Amino acid sequence: MVLDFDAVIRGGTVVTSGGVARTDIGIRDGRIAALAVGLTAERVIDAGGLLVLPGGVDTHVHLDQPGTGPSEMSDDFDTGTASAAAGGTTTIVSFAWQPRGGSLKETVEDYHRRAAKARIDYSFHLTITDPTPKVLEEELPPLVESGCRSVKVFMTYDGVGLNDAQLIETLAASRKAGALVCVHAEHHGLIEYLSKRLVAAGLTAPKYHPWAKPALVEREAIGRIAAIAEMLDVPIQIFHVSCPETAAEVARFRAQGLKIWAETCPQYLAFTAEDLDRPGFEGAKFIFGPPARSASDTEGLWHYLRDGTLGIISSDHSPMNFDSPRGKKVAGEDASFDQVPNGIPGLAARLPIAFHEGVVKGRIDLETFVDLVATRPARLFGLAPRKGAIAIGADADLVLWDPDATQVLTLAGQHHGGDYTPYEGREVRGRVVSTYLRGEAVFANGRVIGPPGEGRFLARGPYPEI
Amino acid sequence: MVLDFDAVIRGGTVVTSGGVARTDIGIRDGRIAALAVGLTAERVIDAGGLLVLPGGVDTHVHLDQPGTGPSEMSDDFDTGTASAAAGGTTTIVSFAWQPRGGSLKETVEDYHRRAAKARIDYSFHLTITDPTPKVLEEELPPLVESGCRSVKVFMTYDGVGLNDAQLIETLAASRKAGALVCVHAEHHGLIEYLSKRLVAAGLTAPKYHPWAKPALVEREAIGRIAAIAEMLDVPIQIFHVSCPETAAEVARFRAQGLKIWAETCPQYLAFTAEDLDRPGFEGAKFIFGPPARSASDTEGLWHYLRDGTLGIISSDHSPMNFDSPRGKKVAGEDASFDQVPNGIPGLAARLPIAFHEGVVKGRIDLETFVDLVATRPARLFGLAPRKGAIAIGADADLVLWDPDATQVLTLAGQHHGGDYTPYEGREVRGRVVSTYLRGEAVFANGRVIGPPGEGRFLARGPYPEI
Amino acid sequence: MVLDFDAVIRGGTVVTSGGVARTDIGIRDGRIAALAVGLTAERVIDAGGLLVLPGGVDTHVHLDQPGTGPSEMSDDFDTGTASAAAGGTTTIVSFAWQPRGGSLKETVEDYHRRAAKARIDYSFHLTITDPTPKVLEEELPPLVESGCRSVKVFMTYDGVGLNDAQLIETLAASRKAGALVCVHAEHHGLIEYLSKRLVAAGLTAPKYHPWAKPALVEREAIGRIAAIAEMLDVPIQIFHVSCPETAAEVARFRAQGLKIWAETCPQYLAFTAEDLDRPGFEGAKFIFGPPARSASDTEGLWHYLRDGTLGIISSDHSPMNFDSPRGKKVAGEDASFDQVPNGIPGLAARLPIAFHEGVVKGRIDLETFVDLVATRPARLFGLAPRKGAIAIGADADLVLWDPDATQVLTLAGQHHGGDYTPYEGREVRGRVVSTYLRGEAVFANGRVIGPPGEGRFLARGPYPEI
Amino acid sequence: MVLDFDAVIRGGTVVTSGGVARTDIGIRDGRIAALAVGLTAERVIDAGGLLVLPGGVDTHVHLDQPGTGPSEMSDDFDTGTASAAAGGTTTIVSFAWQPRGGSLKETVEDYHRRAAKARIDYSFHLTITDPTPKVLEEELPPLVESGCRSVKVFMTYDGVGLNDAQLIETLAASRKAGALVCVHAEHHGLIEYLSKRLVAAGLTAPKYHPWAKPALVEREAIGRIAAIAEMLDVPIQIFHVSCPETAAEVARFRAQGLKIWAETCPQYLAFTAEDLDRPGFEGAKFIFGPPARSASDTEGLWHYLRDGTLGIISSDHSPMNFDSPRGKKVAGEDASFDQVPNGIPGLAARLPIAFHEGVVKGRIDLETFVDLVATRPARLFGLAPRKGAIAIGADADLVLWDPDATQVLTLAGQHHGGDYTPYEGREVRGRVVSTYLRGEAVFANGRVIGPPGEGRFLARGPYPEI
Ligand SMILES: [Zn+2]
Ligand SMILES: [Zn+2]
Ligand SMILES: [Zn+2]
Ligand SMILES: [Zn+2]
Ligand SMILES: [Zn+2]
Ligand SMILES: [Zn+2]
Ligand SMILES: [Zn+2]
Ligand SMILES: [Zn+2]
Repeated sequence: MVLDFDAVIRGGTVVTSGGVARTDIGIRDGRIAALAVGLTAERVIDAGGLLVLPGGVDTHVHLDQPGTGPSEMSDDFDTGTASAAAGGTTTIVSFAWQPRGGSLKETVEDYHRRAAKARIDYSFHLTITDPTPKVLEEELPPLVESGCRSVKVFMTYDGVGLNDAQLIETLAASRKAGALVCVHAEHHGLIEYLSKRLVAAGLTAPKYHPWAKPALVEREAIGRIAAIAEMLDVPIQIFHVSCPETAAEVARFRAQGLKIWAETCPQYLAFTAEDLDRPGFEGAKFIFGPPARSASDTEGLWHYLRDGTLGIISSDHSPMNFDSPRGKKVAGEDASFDQVPNGIPGLAARLPIAFHEGVVKGRIDLETFVDLVATRPARLFGLAPRKGAIAIGADADLVLWDPDATQVLTLAGQHHGGDYTPYEGREVRGRVVSTYLRGEAVFANGRVIGPPGEGRFLARGPYPEI
Repeated sequence: MVLDFDAVIRGGTVVTSGGVARTDIGIRDGRIAALAVGLTAERVIDAGGLLVLPGGVDTHVHLDQPGTGPSEMSDDFDTGTASAAAGGTTTIVSFAWQPRGGSLKETVEDYHRRAAKARIDYSFHLTITDPTPKVLEEELPPLVESGCRSVKVFMTYDGVGLNDAQLIETLAASRKAGALVCVHAEHHGLIEYLSKRLVAAGLTAPKYHPWAKPALVEREAIGRIAAIAEMLDVPIQIFHVSCPETAAEVARFRAQGLKIWAETCPQYLAFTAEDLDRPGFEGAKFIFGPPARSASDTEGLWHYLRDGTLGIISSDHSPMNFDSPRGKKVAGEDASFDQVPNGIPGLAARLPIAFHEGVVKGRIDLETFVDLVATRPARLFGLAPRKGAIAIGADADLVLWDPDATQVLTLAGQHHGGDYTPYEGREVRGRVVSTYLRGEAVFANGRVIGPPGEGRFLARGPYPEI
Repeated sequence: MVLDFDAVIRGGTVVTSGGVARTDIGIRDGRIAALAVGLTAERVIDAGGLLVLPGGVDTHVHLDQPGTGPSEMSDDFDTGTASAAAGGTTTIVSFAWQPRGGSLKETVEDYHRRAAKARIDYSFHLTITDPTPKVLEEELPPLVESGCRSVKVFMTYDGVGLNDAQLIETLAASRKAGALVCVHAEHHGLIEYLSKRLVAAGLTAPKYHPWAKPALVEREAIGRIAAIAEMLDVPIQIFHVSCPETAAEVARFRAQGLKIWAETCPQYLAFTAEDLDRPGFEGAKFIFGPPARSASDTEGLWHYLRDGTLGIISSDHSPMNFDSPRGKKVAGEDASFDQVPNGIPGLAARLPIAFHEGVVKGRIDLETFVDLVATRPARLFGLAPRKGAIAIGADADLVLWDPDATQVLTLAGQHHGGDYTPYEGREVRGRVVSTYLRGEAVFANGRVIGPPGEGRFLARGPYPEI
Repeated sequence: MVLDFDAVIRGGTVVTSGGVARTDIGIRDGRIAALAVGLTAERVIDAGGLLVLPGGVDTHVHLDQPGTGPSEMSDDFDTGTASAAAGGTTTIVSFAWQPRGGSLKETVEDYHRRAAKARIDYSFHLTITDPTPKVLEEELPPLVESGCRSVKVFMTYDGVGLNDAQLIETLAASRKAGALVCVHAEHHGLIEYLSKRLVAAGLTAPKYHPWAKPALVEREAIGRIAAIAEMLDVPIQIFHVSCPETAAEVARFRAQGLKIWAETCPQYLAFTAEDLDRPGFEGAKFIFGPPARSASDTEGLWHYLRDGTLGIISSDHSPMNFDSPRGKKVAGEDASFDQVPNGIPGLAARLPIAFHEGVVKGRIDLETFVDLVATRPARLFGLAPRKGAIAIGADADLVLWDPDATQVLTLAGQHHGGDYTPYEGREVRGRVVSTYLRGEAVFANGRVIGPPGEGRFLARGPYPEI
């Protein structure tokens, strides 16, 4: 018989969440058309000695968002998706971030324009900061219908955090519209109280950031949002679980039958609170929320990654400059920790950190690694079966991965905007050799080659979880 | 040797939380001066065939409080304490209820005046509805020092419920001042949301009251207040636990080392949600919050009463008229459930219900009964060793109790104000024969004989739990 | 390019544990050589409108074993594997059953001879009933090395059950040899005590069988074997979990870090204790151990199947005649329940029951179904990646499955030996259209066509779980 | 009025489990006849500045038992009860220890003779080592009826440990007879296996004793006995809980509704495994079973003592000589740990250790201390209301206790037989000033003055717990 392919990836070891197999991959029209040994085509990509992974799916990525006050993001959809490609990620779900008082519909239209520069495929969460009846009743349903099947809410942060009544209304409307609700779950009042007291006591260095956000603020917030979700029967995803105490709460509610899922991020696997105690203002490079915790917390998260309570490793990429009055130093070079904008870049470091801390250190196997960074995020957010797996008919989003190569993470290698990476100098085993989006190389030989504008919006249809 | 007593209670079976013994009780100067067989005095009270219990201590009693809008309480300190005496209770902790915008100091002064009519001894919880810095920093500490060592906060109800920031500030101030914090723990937002939806759907009958307050609103609120209490290291008492799901949360936090205690009330042991489905507006007689639940919830509460998670049975006496435009019918004879003021009278029914449902039905022994209605409330609120026990030096607050007599509960027998008791017609075994306050009869032969004004304010000093 | 296949399965919807995809399957040399749309070969199998599943892997199958006393099995490897093929199962792990006093080595040699008639592939568990030092130290290690990497022990049943000291020695030796230990976990003493008392009281009908084996006998046994396994660091698999109480124990120990896995069987999902109360001696058709339990237990098992605590559905096929002095009636037509041999046939009913109760009734999705009946059993017992999945390089063991067809289960349709099936007359949706072993049809058009002797022994090498 | 007393204890602070009060105690006919301030009698005992406690009740005491092989106990009822008196204990429950093959009836008769020398009151547990039908059906019921309402069984130790079938029969018979079953709960098989392996490896020093008895052998045994007790509805008491992991199991089963209670002993609060690592053979002085564990285990036990899971502190007094071929050195001066008889003396150290580690170190209050060493043991074993409390009508068993005095524990001060105390040289705060049995001093001024033979057998009637 005869089969024609546009390209063939030959000789690699293909890893999916279901197993590992030696097979070639035939690509036609941007999709995976065949899996077999001995495929040929004019264009042959040699994967000998390499792993072939499904392209990473990163479902928690902030790009080109308005800053709080004078600070600003150091990545737009061009630089941000360049970094994604360099890190082996071919799909992101980014945020369409409603400004207070603004229209959600116009917000989404605006983000469609911003995202026109994307080099890889993308979809949007709808960040709702002002859940007026108009937003919830008129704007939300058609936007969900148009493919944005997830809503993001905050339980803390001035200007974006919703109060209980707003949370309830937003969750109720999301359920009706058929959207999954993603939650930044921290108790606002306690953080504010503790921050004020710490600052008043002169404890203002970056290292006090975790003091103001103890684990129990996460535990409380999960209890609260779970009660609302249980009452209203709304599926929810807990963002950035930072410690096992929080994961245990998620597990407890899931065992009770709630549709509750959760993710963690590389920063909670790679850093501890001690990283915030670096000399001078260096600690500000590690200010993100919830904060980094202890080494034993880190170890505990792997337990919950193995047992499925934490099903996704996303980046929570929130990039900004360090040495800039519009970045970490927006309140000065010696600002108190509560004046430092939260967030770090991490899109390109996600797979390397997860692979090194997980697979190389023997905490998870290859299949679980792929599941956490690609397959499960794609499924939970309605991107499967097109994204997140190597299967016939899926998009030919692929990563050639050298499991034995050692690399040192550097700012240059992250390919994102901004002046620093918190992973600077960290040595890891495993690296991206090349990344393919719908069959075309977007990263190879250490260079991002996918052009801006090649990325496509992924309209998500209804799917089982919601 | 010679011992002189003012009175002797002779021939009874004395029950304490520690055991049961046949002994006489010698009383001198209003205190228990001797326990022995064969005591004599000019005044001998025959307790043959009866149990002698320590006078009941009811640590959750609303009297003479301002109503919400045009409704009003049907008991002041005169009628309320008459009912207490009739029900075998000799000590209450009532509320000094700060009006919004009002001074807490003046509130307490006012309640001292109101309570001047009391027939039995009393102390005050400080209900804080408006925790301004002046209230918390200036007024609270001297009031606690003056003997009001407990604070009451609401997490729901318009006009009295505190928001998170207020709760945190109030708990922090209470800890500093050395007060135990009592909490009405229900999630305000969900109740409001559900009530609105039910009413909008035309589901307005009294029986929908429990629909608007499912168990998870309690669970959520306990998780929230426990997080605050844990963070700030504040001892808390959860009021009126209505179901085992809530008690389980209390047990969970206590096992983690929190100083958290809890009570339940006779209404949760005697009624179920079905009582709210009586014909016409009758169900409104059973509207209290949290609401009555199911028979299996009732049974479950006994488990937690036995294992100590629930250490107190209080009345939450909140009396009002039924057939009155200033009572249950304040919004009309056919008001929707959310317009009906919450609360029922129950001071005099507390011991009879607890004895019948507990001891007579074999769920607890006599010692545990006494512990729940007298000894533990006295200890937890700093009234021991003077109140709550039959011991040398304690106040001679005593109840002669006939364990075999059967009575039918009626409004007249409750001796309180207002036009109804929800227990009307209920037959129970066990009844108060007579009640003694500091050695003097305040109730006997079915009549309240303790005069208004005999009750004394109990200034509570520091004690181990706080 | 050109690819030659021996056969192509065309037009089906391929289901794996990782997803569902429309693709053809190219088969060469008995293996899956290609997955792609548009494959051709001389031999084309039309799967239009059908699901294509990996061949079922049944890791708990009793065939051709010596009976206890005069009873005997009604299936040898010929009839048993015929039934497997008819039920969509292409791999079994059966038992090499050491007789007391016998050599384990000779037992395995004997079973290799018995299994020479097999129509599908097979491997062996080593059932150890007499763990002498010679058996454990000399015989066991080379047998494990030869590919029998699992040991089976009984905690109950006279003549096969091991005592504590024997269990410890056997688990210690298994760990050293590198074998997974499968456990029939029930508390022997309580079963014996209860059986004796029930029989003495004249409660001898089949319906008293579950009375003699309450859930706590499973709970106890799991606690015991888990303690031994934890102490000696031995991976264990709990056989035939019958109820959620037992599954909860497994979950508890797994959360503590033990290498403990568990299965359940179709009979626990399809029958309840009421089935044992059929008229006359009919109930004996449902005597298996542990026994069928309640409908709510059945529902509870699905919870643990979904959350992964129960990772496998095996058949525990233990066939015997009903109306025979060498079958269920070995002790007469009216024998007391404890004299009736335990066990039922079920090889061919496994997939239909799991599909109907699971997928059709909405309790699990297609991927989980495949995972439970093929992928996970293959992995846990070291048969992957060759068995249990549809992947390049795997054996072309495939089932064409009609998800919409309704069938009534009958003895004839089970294709096994013996005179009854407990599933007689049960209507289910979903049925096997045809079954392929290494690319060759072994069942089609309602007939078993794979010849005896085509099955091969699967020597299992070391694998991650052990 | 006039009251005559044989004696009055004047000026003390009386502590009961229910509270603390300043009162005198009037004693008449060996009983507490009055509690009052100002009592007089010819004989006045000055308790000024002292605490007055109920006499200690020690419900786990081995005296005058046959040794295993050539070893022997270093205390009979004379010396043992002298030690009890010196340590503030006025009631013991000792063991009537059936020899294998012996009659239980004759055993009890024999122990009545042995106990004729007792200086304080006593009752017996029936240690059943050979549960023949004759013992269980014929001998047990009248012995229970005669006042020995508790049975003791071992799950380990050669020669005394019962197998599962024996445990079941013994528990079933105990329930029928109305006896509480006390359990030495450790998994025999694992201990034997580990001991053998350790000795084979040359790890024979005393410090390896805890290695052979890890916490999981207790956990397993509790799971097993709880299953039997649940099945047969038998009340059980777990002896000598050594660590929180075990206590957690007890708590778990109690929460499920089992009648299960538990004790711990001073040795688990005072020693750790490190004490077994003293130079030479000194560690053998600390060999008891279950073994001493870690400092964090010790701390954890207090949590369960506070929450009531562990309701009793008993001594498990099992005295023997250290430097003797009939004591710890029965197998030589360098015996391997498994050849050293288990057990230590501790009767006199019980109250001092519990007071110092508990009250002085702030872990429990005075009332709880009294509850653990006197009130609850008396209640659980049917000795209340006569023993364990200071109440009208109770035996005048009293201890004058100096809470501020410091003492150094020494062998001489223990007043028991044998050549050592493991507490030698330990400094504690709190000491016994004098001990009274039924109104008569049995210990005072550092000397035991109660004569042998003054102790009486306490026949226990039926009581609520059984
Ligand atoms: Zn966030
Ligand atoms: Zn984020
Ligand atoms: Zn309230
Ligand atoms: Zn109230
Ligand atoms: Zn079995
Ligand atoms: Zn089996
Ligand atoms: Zn013992
Ligand atoms: Zn002992």
